[in-house]
Amino acid sequence: MSGWVKIAGLGPGAEALVTPEVSAALAEATDVVGYIPYVARVAERPGLTLHASDNRVELDRSRHALEMAAEGRRVVVVSSGDPGVFAMAAAVFEAVEAGPSDWRALEIEVLPGITAMLAAAARAGAPLGHDFCAINLSDNLKPWAVIERRLRLAAEADFAMAFYNPRSKSRPEGFARALVVLTEACGDDRPVLFARAVSTPEEELRVVPLPEATPEMADMRTMVILGSSRTRLIERPGRAPIVYTPRGIDP
Amino acid sequence: MSGWVKIAGLGPGAEALVTPEVSAALAEATDVVGYIPYVARVAERPGLTLHASDNRVELDRSRHALEMAAEGRRVVVVSSGDPGVFAMAAAVFEAVEAGPSDWRALEIEVLPGITAMLAAAARAGAPLGHDFCAINLSDNLKPWAVIERRLRLAAEADFAMAFYNPRSKSRPEGFARALVVLTEACGDDRPVLFARAVSTPEEELRVVPLPEATPEMADMRTMVILGSSRTRLIERPGRAPIVYTPRGIDP
Repeated sequence: MSGWVKIAGLGPGAEALVTPEVSAALAEATDVVGYIPYVARVAERPGLTLHASDNRVELDRSRHALEMAAEGRRVVVVSSGDPGVFAMAAAVFEAVEAGPSDWRALEIEVLPGITAMLAAAARAGAPLGHDFCAINLSDNLKPWAVIERRLRLAAEADFAMAFYNPRSKSRPEGFARALVVLTEACGDDRPVLFARAVSTPEEELRVVPLPEATPEMADMRTMVILGSSRTRLIERPGRAPIVYTPRGIDP
Repeated sequence: MSGWVKIAGLGPGAEALVTPEVSAALAEATDVVGYIPYVARVAERPGLTLHASDNRVELDRSRHALEMAAEGRRVVVVSSGDPGVFAMAAAVFEAVEAGPSDWRALEIEVLPGITAMLAAAARAGAPLGHDFCAINLSDNLKPWAVIERRLRLAAEADFAMAFYNPRSKSRPEGFARALVVLTEACGDDRPVLFARAVSTPEEELRVVPLPEATPEMADMRTMVILGSSRTRLIERPGRAPIVYTPRGIDP
């Protein structure tokens, strides 16, 4: 039997958000590769080897997966959310491009998943109901100047904005700077959603006006969604307000 | 039993991309409401009434769903893809905001799905592996000037761009204008992905350099993804190239 690599999205956390396509791939796999907390979400079974590795070794992990597939193994690389959004798919293709030419002949498939911004948006209402952008706030892989420039242009375009990786222990100051830039560039009190650990037992949602947002409201398990200038709140008796962005702009 | 509305994403087409959460909601529903081709994807069964309606009546459909829930029915509003991305969730909340105040007390939940851009990106590789934006090219609900301005700012921010609703019979000229603006604003030959009917038997993928993209390459079942300036192709023997955007930008 010939080997393959499937780069699969496990969704934000709940089993009910894992697609049947991903479950089927896991059932056929001989090996699962990924970051420790994501591999921990895969059930052990005879015939399946779990290879959990630490954060920030995405290229090593990708090469390992490709080497095993070249030896005939059926390898699932797991990501949280969707593998194509700030996750493992691009890392695997970076490894393919830089690797031996026979890796290009391998069967490599990406299996989409529910990415964090869609799960977070769904829990709050529909803040991404009009044009939006998704920005990775981690400056591990790009200079801060690029991030700041994108924040200003996204505000000028009046996109809603979904922020991945807003904050980590190793660089707590980045998100604080982002909030300063955004408050200045937006100049209004549009809502910001802090959605932590969505679809898990630790889920917490919080909605505040942009000028009241503070860096401590986010950690590495938090997805942050900033509305556009047209994002609205619908107040409800005894419940959190609905946050949504209307579909249209009148001419 | 008290009624509810669940606004559910059916994903791009394949059954294997429908989440268990959505399948469970459909199994509990008394009524399913939606655009004709999406309601046609729901299996009929005793006790379930299907209410299929035409395109462009999203608000009527939303009010109908809310009225039925207020009468105690369990209503699933179906969207293709994800309901929060250019689909039914924002329309339902527009109806809630403008409707009678008791609608605000209803149980309304959004169930996320695999949106078209994630499915299309997965089939091609990982074109959305770095910062990106999603723009609805339909000018039914916003003026063309807003679209053009966003295209120019997105190019300046060097986002990859996912375009929903690129083209319809009633306004074939919009996408042609978008391609002219983008070719000028980007000024290079970055790849454009045309992904039609992804995950269905009619699936077709095509990748061309931006200056060679033409309006006829898209129809209303096509998702268009334009790379950023850093999006790359990995050529493969006997197969379509992989399209991906590396994760990082060197300082």
